[in-house]
Amino acid sequence: MWKAKIQVTLKKSVLDPQGVAVEKALKTLNYSNVGDVRVGKYLEVSVDGKDREEVEGQIRDMCDRLLTNPVIEDYTFEVTEV
Amino acid sequence: MWKAKIQVTLKKSVLDPQGVAVEKALKTLNYSNVGDVRVGKYLEVSVDGKDREEVEGQIRDMCDRLLTNPVIEDYTFEVTEV
Repeated sequence: MWKAKIQVTLKKSVLDPQGVAVEKALKTLNYSNVGDVRVGKYLEVSVDGKDREEVEGQIRDMCDRLLTNPVIEDYTFEVTEV
Repeated sequence: MWKAKIQVTLKKSVLDPQGVAVEKALKTLNYSNVGDVRVGKYLEVSVDGKDREEVEGQIRDMCDRLLTNPVIEDYTFEVTEV
């Protein structure tokens, strides 16, 4: 059994209003040293698989087909055996 | 300048309907080897600060006060110098 931890973020060129809202909220709470904030999605997916290469390939496939919107989002992931 | 990458997940005991929906969608796409799926939030926060201890303390403070709901959510983060 493997567990994939996937981070999905908006591409740098895409405006992130939720991130801007969080940044303003943090500044309102007197965290004046806060810079840019970006908000994205985080997914943990458990999968059965023989080896790391197979699992990584499948996770990449899932991200491209369902979990992310490749037009506006980037993703990174790490796979660990559990 | 430091960058904190924060992963926020629902606690294990809290039902995650979005994760269940993603799991079903993946199975519909013939990924029959998929197990549990959990969906959470991912944040990247840039902060100014003197040293790692100061920045980590401040990020923990932000998470507890604004970024997460400690009743139903857990969080982990890593801080890197950029």
